[in-house]
Amino acid sequence: MRPEEGFARRAGALLRAAANDLKRDDENAERELGLEKGTFAQYADGRRPVDWELMRRAAQTWPLNERDLLPLHDDSPAGVRIMRQEESRASSRVLSRAGEPYYEYRDTAMSRIASYRPEWIRMLRVVDDNEPENPLVQWNRGHLLYQFTYFIGPVNYYYRWDGVSHCVPMETGDSVWGLPFAPHSFAARTSAEPACILALTYGGSLVGDAQRELAVLGNAATQALAVPLAEGARLPGAAIRSFMDAGAVTVAELADRTGISPRRTEELAGGSVSPDAKELALLATGLGVSVRDLLLPRSGTVDGVSVQHARDARSWVWPGDGATAYRITRLAGDPLHPHTSALQVDVLLDDVEQAAPLTTYQHQYLYVLGDDPVGLRWEFAGERFEYTLGPGDSAYVRPQVPITFAAARGGRPRVLLLRISGAVTPEVRYAVGTMAAGGIDRYVAEDRLWYS
Amino acid sequence: MRPEEGFARRAGALLRAAANDLKRDDENAERELGLEKGTFAQYADGRRPVDWELMRRAAQTWPLNERDLLPLHDDSPAGVRIMRQEESRASSRVLSRAGEPYYEYRDTAMSRIASYRPEWIRMLRVVDDNEPENPLVQWNRGHLLYQFTYFIGPVNYYYRWDGVSHCVPMETGDSVWGLPFAPHSFAARTSAEPACILALTYGGSLVGDAQRELAVLGNAATQALAVPLAEGARLPGAAIRSFMDAGAVTVAELADRTGISPRRTEELAGGSVSPDAKELALLATGLGVSVRDLLLPRSGTVDGVSVQHARDARSWVWPGDGATAYRITRLAGDPLHPHTSALQVDVLLDDVEQAAPLTTYQHQYLYVLGDDPVGLRWEFAGERFEYTLGPGDSAYVRPQVPITFAAARGGRPRVLLLRISGAVTPEVRYAVGTMAAGGIDRYVAEDRLWYS
Repeated sequence: MRPEEGFARRAGALLRAAANDLKRDDENAERELGLEKGTFAQYADGRRPVDWELMRRAAQTWPLNERDLLPLHDDSPAGVRIMRQEESRASSRVLSRAGEPYYEYRDTAMSRIASYRPEWIRMLRVVDDNEPENPLVQWNRGHLLYQFTYFIGPVNYYYRWDGVSHCVPMETGDSVWGLPFAPHSFAARTSAEPACILALTYGGSLVGDAQRELAVLGNAATQALAVPLAEGARLPGAAIRSFMDAGAVTVAELADRTGISPRRTEELAGGSVSPDAKELALLATGLGVSVRDLLLPRSGTVDGVSVQHARDARSWVWPGDGATAYRITRLAGDPLHPHTSALQVDVLLDDVEQAAPLTTYQHQYLYVLGDDPVGLRWEFAGERFEYTLGPGDSAYVRPQVPITFAAARGGRPRVLLLRISGAVTPEVRYAVGTMAAGGIDRYVAEDRLWYS
Repeated sequence: MRPEEGFARRAGALLRAAANDLKRDDENAERELGLEKGTFAQYADGRRPVDWELMRRAAQTWPLNERDLLPLHDDSPAGVRIMRQEESRASSRVLSRAGEPYYEYRDTAMSRIASYRPEWIRMLRVVDDNEPENPLVQWNRGHLLYQFTYFIGPVNYYYRWDGVSHCVPMETGDSVWGLPFAPHSFAARTSAEPACILALTYGGSLVGDAQRELAVLGNAATQALAVPLAEGARLPGAAIRSFMDAGAVTVAELADRTGISPRRTEELAGGSVSPDAKELALLATGLGVSVRDLLLPRSGTVDGVSVQHARDARSWVWPGDGATAYRITRLAGDPLHPHTSALQVDVLLDDVEQAAPLTTYQHQYLYVLGDDPVGLRWEFAGERFEYTLGPGDSAYVRPQVPITFAAARGGRPRVLLLRISGAVTPEVRYAVGTMAAGGIDRYVAEDRLWYS
C-alpha cells in the first residue's frame, strides 16, 4: 500500500468512526453533510479522499473539530526510519544569540508518529571558567519540551531554577534530564576539541490532545488542574480530595463506605497524615478507584534536573546469563517519566547471528556515537532488514520492532538509545486489553456501521 | 474575543510551538515553508490565518502532521453549553434494524472539547418476556465508545460477552456502565408507558492521539501493546517485565539494584507471586519508577458490564455537616475509569443563595430528569450566569466551573450528572504542576521564540 493510500484509508475510518459515535448511518450523514447519495461509504472506505472542505463542513455541522478527522502520516512504513549523517549535515544552521553565532544545529532522525525533536548541537561559544554567571553565556527562556541531553567533549551545562543559576562541567558520556520551561545554556570549555551535545527533546504527554484542551480551557483552569509534587505535597490527600470532588462524596459518606472514623477520614483527606496500607485499600474501594490512583509519582530531580555523570553510571551486560551481546549503561532519567529510558549500548559482538534482539513497547531513537560503524538488523511485518549505520547516523524505531546490533567492521560501536512513550499510555494499554473480542481490529481501523 | 479569533490565535500558537520544537527561528521557518519574509510572526500571532495550504506544506516539509497544527473549537465560551429539549427533538431520527423502526434517537448536549456523545433513545420495539434470545431483539455489533446508560421506564437491557447473551429488566433510576465493542440492545417491556434511556457514550483515552498512533502502528503492534487485566493476570509481573524491557535490565542487574535475590527477582518478574510492600518499593526504586507504576488497575465489571440498580444504590446528602443542598445517588461506574463519575442529584433547596456549588476537575454533562424545572447558576471568568432548565434540557459544563442547582418553581428537580476526564490525565496534571515558574502561561499559549 502506498503511504498516501494508507492515509486516505485511515482518514476514511475516522469519518466512519465519527459518524458511528454520533449514531449517524450513511443516509443521515449524507443529508447532514450535504453529500451526494451513496457517496458516504466511498469516503469512509478511502475510495474518495476526505478533503479539507469535507472536514470543515463536518466540523461545522457536527460537534467535532477538523483535527478529529485527521490521521497521522506514516513515515516509517518499514518499521525504522534512518537519517544519514550527510542529511543531518545538510540541515545545519547557525543560531545566534545577541547577534553572535552561538550554536550550530543539525536535525537528526525524527518521525511524524513520535514526539521526538532530537538535535545535534555544536557549541560555538568558548568560556574559560565554570562560573554560572559568566556574561559570555547566553541563556534561553526554556521550552515546553522535556530535554534529555547527552554530552560529547568538554561542554559546560548551565541551568536556572527558582532564579538561581548553576553550571556543571560535563565530559563525554555524561547526561542530564530536565523539566520544561527551565532556562538553560551550553558552552565549550575549549576550542581545541569538539564540544557537542545531543539535545533530545520530546513532548510526551504535554503535546497533542492535552495541550489542545488546555489551550481552550485557558490559564486559570490549567492552574487549578495542576497538581504540584513539591516536597510536602506528596501525601495522597490531594488525590483523595480530588476523587471526593469527582464523586461529590462527603467525609461522612466516605467514612461510612470505608469504616474509617470521620475524624481520621478528614485527616487523611486533609493531607496532613499518610494512610497505612489497609486504609489505602479501604479508601480506594470506597472511592471506586484503584490503589494506584491514590499514589503520587515521585521525582528525583533537584532544581528541575537530574544529572548522571558517566563516572558513576550503572552498567551491565545484556542479555546476561552468560550471553554478552551488549554492555548497557543507564543514562539520566527521572521516575516522573517512568516510560522514558536513556541507554548507552556498547556493542560487543561482531556476528549479528549471535547477538540478541532488543524489543520494547516504547518508541526508540538511536544515534551512532564514537567512530565505529554498527550493523543494525530489524524485523518488521515478517521481513528482515539489515543496514550499516556510520558514526553520526541516527534512526527512529517504531514500538515492538526488535532491533539487533553487531560491530560492522570490527571495532566496538557505541549507540545511544532514547526510548519514550507515545500517546499509548498504560491506561490505553489496559483499555485495549479489556475490549470485547474482535474490538482491537475495529479500534485500529473502524470500517463498518455499529450495526448490520 | 470572537470564537474564530480565538481559534486563529490558538492555531498561530501551535505553529510557533512547532517551529520552536524544531528549533527554527522566523527566518528559517520562512525559508523552509516558502513564506514571504516577515510573515511568519504574523501567522504565529494570529494576524494571518494559518490556512490548510500552509498546514499541508508544513506537514510535507517538517516531520509533523496537519493535525499537529490544528486547535480545537471553543463552543462553550461562557463555560456552559445548554441544549434545550426542543433542539433535541429537532434532531430526532428513527433508526431501523432489519428493516423495521427500532429506536428513536435524539442528540443532547455535546461539546467540541469533550468526548461525550450523549443520546436520548426511545425504544420502539416491545417484548413480552425477559429472554435474552428473544428473536424480536435486534443486536448491534458493539461500538468503540464506553457507554453509561441511565434507564427511564420499563426497559430491558441486553448484552453479550464471550458469546453468552444476558437480559436485565431495568426500572427508572437503574444504570449500567459497559466496556467497548460488546454487542448490546434494548427493548420496551410495554407500550403502555414511555421506555427510554440516556445512552451516554464517551471515548475517554481511546479516542484522539492514541487512536491515531495505533492506527499507524497497526493490528499486530496493538495486540502486543494490549495489557489484559483478566483474573490471574493482575499481579505486577507484567509491569515489572515491561519496565525491565524498557531499561534493558536483566534479572541479575535488577537483583543487584534492589538487594532482592536473583531467584526471587525472577519469580516476581515472572508474575507467579506478588511482591510485599517492601519489595514493591525496592523494585520501583530499582526500575526508576514510582510504586503506582507497578500496580495494576482493577475492574468490577462482570461479563463486561457493571450494573447498578436504583434499589441498592448508595445515597447521601451534600455538602453535609448539617447543610443539605442535594441528595446525591451514586450510579454505575467502574474503577477501570476512576475519573468517570455518574451521579443522580435530587435538588432539595428552593433558594440558590443557600445552595452550594459543585466543582470538579472533570468535564460534566447534565440532563434534567423528571418533571420539575431546575435553576442552574454558574460562575465563569468572573461573571455569574443563571438559567432555568426544563425537563429534557441538557448541558455541557467545562472543568473547574462551579455549578449550583435550586428548585426553579417549587417541586423537587432531579438532575443526572455524568462526569468524565478529558485528555488532561493525572500524568498531565502532575507534568503541569512540575513546570518551571511561568511555564503554564506559555504552555497554554506559546507566543514567543524560545530565546530572546
